[in-house]
Amino acid sequence: MSNKDSFTFNCPAPLATGAEISLAHGSGGALTHQLIEQLILPAFGNPMLDARHDGAVLEFNGTRLAFSTDSYVVQPLFFPGGNIGDLAINGTVSDLAMCGARPRYLSAGLILEEGFPMEQLERIVSSMQVAAQQADVQLVTGDTKVVEKGCGDGVFINTSGIGIIEGNTSVSPARIENGDLIILSGDLGRHGIAVMAARESLDFGVTITSDTAPLSLPVLSLLTAGIDLHCLRDLTRGGLATALVEVAGTAQTDFSIEEHAIPVSEPVRGACEILGLDPLYVANEGRFAAWVKAADAKQVLEILRGHPLGTGACIIGRVTEGGHGAVSMETLVGGKRAIDMLSGEQLPRIC
Amino acid sequence: MSNKDSFTFNCPAPLATGAEISLAHGSGGALTHQLIEQLILPAFGNPMLDARHDGAVLEFNGTRLAFSTDSYVVQPLFFPGGNIGDLAINGTVSDLAMCGARPRYLSAGLILEEGFPMEQLERIVSSMQVAAQQADVQLVTGDTKVVEKGCGDGVFINTSGIGIIEGNTSVSPARIENGDLIILSGDLGRHGIAVMAARESLDFGVTITSDTAPLSLPVLSLLTAGIDLHCLRDLTRGGLATALVEVAGTAQTDFSIEEHAIPVSEPVRGACEILGLDPLYVANEGRFAAWVKAADAKQVLEILRGHPLGTGACIIGRVTEGGHGAVSMETLVGGKRAIDMLSGEQLPRIC
Repeated sequence: MSNKDSFTFNCPAPLATGAEISLAHGSGGALTHQLIEQLILPAFGNPMLDARHDGAVLEFNGTRLAFSTDSYVVQPLFFPGGNIGDLAINGTVSDLAMCGARPRYLSAGLILEEGFPMEQLERIVSSMQVAAQQADVQLVTGDTKVVEKGCGDGVFINTSGIGIIEGNTSVSPARIENGDLIILSGDLGRHGIAVMAARESLDFGVTITSDTAPLSLPVLSLLTAGIDLHCLRDLTRGGLATALVEVAGTAQTDFSIEEHAIPVSEPVRGACEILGLDPLYVANEGRFAAWVKAADAKQVLEILRGHPLGTGACIIGRVTEGGHGAVSMETLVGGKRAIDMLSGEQLPRIC
Repeated sequence: MSNKDSFTFNCPAPLATGAEISLAHGSGGALTHQLIEQLILPAFGNPMLDARHDGAVLEFNGTRLAFSTDSYVVQPLFFPGGNIGDLAINGTVSDLAMCGARPRYLSAGLILEEGFPMEQLERIVSSMQVAAQQADVQLVTGDTKVVEKGCGDGVFINTSGIGIIEGNTSVSPARIENGDLIILSGDLGRHGIAVMAARESLDFGVTITSDTAPLSLPVLSLLTAGIDLHCLRDLTRGGLATALVEVAGTAQTDFSIEEHAIPVSEPVRGACEILGLDPLYVANEGRFAAWVKAADAKQVLEILRGHPLGTGACIIGRVTEGGHGAVSMETLVGGKRAIDMLSGEQLPRIC
């Protein structure tokens, strides 16, 4: 789960009468979690959902598979560095990778709006093809629906995926240990700022491109090297901050991170200052955090930095004693700041 | 595949410049097939997609799994006999059953429109829970997105599913043989007419309820009895006619069916006459066709008729020599009629 929403179900505390869905229910932040915890999890409760991972881990005759789903509603459909098509492939591939799985098969469900230009659909499908090839996955089943003009928004894409978890690999918040180091795979905020700039036609003097990428590639290079990855989490809706708070809560561990260690490129930092955004909460589509034993951290950094998708990898913090699910940050000026989940909606429809 | 769209990819004949998506591209009929064949299949071509089944059959260490996806955009969201929630569970469960699989795990991806009443969402989620329990499947992973008011239409739901294909079960158009009988599980047209009546506030004097149901239940009763099911196909968008034409084309076999043998209830027949619809093309969500050896047909009928979801089962035709992918029907007046795929859009957003 994470800002992915592992389900379960029984409708505990009824939601307020007359309540309505707001954009913030889709933020990946506090209100998304409230929706999941009050409506979804109570109805469907089962151990796979309750694990609150980026996907479910299933076992069939001793073979372990990861299974994940995501719907993509990004606006605009095309943005610097990608479009909804490669985003939809990369996103689900990355979710499977966060389970420690080798992504294998994807489905695609397209909801098209009447009047959508065929030429744009061709470009999107072509990007899906290229992204699937890069990630070495096969798109094996699909579905197409069309809604009347004004009842959709161009294209929505759902991708679901199956990956295989090989050997003894076990990647889960439950495996996080006191003393583990937290490694970030690269600089923050590119995807969110790229999409926002494209949507609002903002000019920051330099084009910031999305970091959308198949995170299975760097993760598999770590697994192949025999690294014991305790936990992985991609930093999508709600950004690094929300991901850390989610994982800390699920694992009932505390994390301490250091602001000076967190890389943010100058263009993204500048854009965030202009927009009044905190890069810790801006969405990424090609960044993840990894929790590993301190003794493994050096090798993890070497492998990641040798991979095109991990050149900016660095240690940003560690797991500390406590067990309250709290995340704190040492700030640049030497203070301590408690990190919370994203509240409200910072950047709607970022993925 | 079928009106499910197994994918593949390479963009062969470019589509006309300036072309746009029309509602008929989502009909499940001829234009949906054109879209798939010209845009989707060329880009992603692989044997699982090319099989053009209701789902892909995947193998992991000797275990065979079926994998299927469907997005639901039905309007209205609530209709006699069901709502988008149980429809989304039953539909994907049924698609897995059409692969001869025992459905096990589902994902759910919700795209909600800002302002959607929480109370309606609770009812939908509750229906999903009940449907999942009835079909004995677990919802193990999910995702929730929210789009601005006016950019969606209440709720869209994607469900993807994984089922296990047990023993030597092999259900596929490729297994259809000359002389096989074609068995229909019950009367036609209930779902399409129920949704259309609810949408247009039509009063046919009697409430026609959708037949939405988990087809895994009757199919598993056949498989458990050791029946060798050659092929199965559910009769959703495009109805019986489109399903037969699809299967005949994929299998390169000819089918001959008899109009007098095809059950349509009086209320549905009356509604179709008023609306100028042919029940052969009206969507169902709880009916399937089965291709079996003639020697097995009697036992199949007995088992189906003993099951609540198959009480109206009957033999409607047979596989004939030819191999051109043609479907013909002996009409009530003794003539022969060639059956084509649905062309255009009869009932948009039926599922």
